Amino acid sequence: MDESIRFYCETLGLKLTRRREVPENKAEIAFVTGEGSDAIGVELTYWREKKDWTDGDQLDHIAFTVPDVRKTIDKLRLQGVEIAKEPYSISGSKSIIAFIKDPNGIWLELIQRP
Amino acid sequence: MDESIRFYCETLGLKLTRRREVPENKAEIAFVTGEGSDAIGVELTYWREKKDWTDGDQLDHIAFTVPDVRKTIDKLRLQGVEIAKEPYSISGSKSIIAFIKDPNGIWLELIQRP
Repeated sequence: MDESIRFYCETLGLKLTRRREVPENKAEIAFVTGEGSDAIGVELTYWREKKDWTDGDQLDHIAFTVPDVRKTIDKLRLQGVEIAKEPYSISGSKSIIAFIKDPNGIWLELIQRP
Repeated sequence: MDESIRFYCETLGLKLTRRREVPENKAEIAFVTGEGSDAIGVELTYWREKKDWTDGDQLDHIAFTVPDVRKTIDKLRLQGVEIAKEPYSISGSKSIIAFIKDPNGIWLELIQRP
């Protein structure tokens, strides 16, 4: 994680906007964001105990912010969208997140920020 | 591609900002972008002849815009960053793109828009 943060911030010039543990995932996450960007940025995840890496694991998913994730999920469900993970929060976070699948089965995160 | 564009635009509410062929890649690409976002958005790629899909192929890479891609590449090279693909343009595009690798070998695109 330290080496990745150095690369994205010192070498590429992004800013570290957040870094924290997610104990229930045995993971550490960090966000690096382009200066002046309105995006949350790139989330770096260090899975502390993950050993079985395959090619698809490095780039995990993309996320969209929504004003009300539960309303969005209810609406998408009615439209036949597959809900991969119902709304929930990770420990210590006031954000509410959920996951849906696009027509190719690609997971997309929806996030409602506090 | 039609089904994916419908999903991202009609179901999720993004806007289709561009759709074109890339003959040298035997591919069609489309960009869908969140309204009011300063991001280029999500690039959807339909590889017309690709059959051997594996789990890592669906989500391909992320891209950052830079003001001068050749200058950035030269600077990154001096810093020891691995250049995966030197600056070039796809047919019919005035953008210049290049690819680098992050410390985990993840490909990142740098793009200089005209």
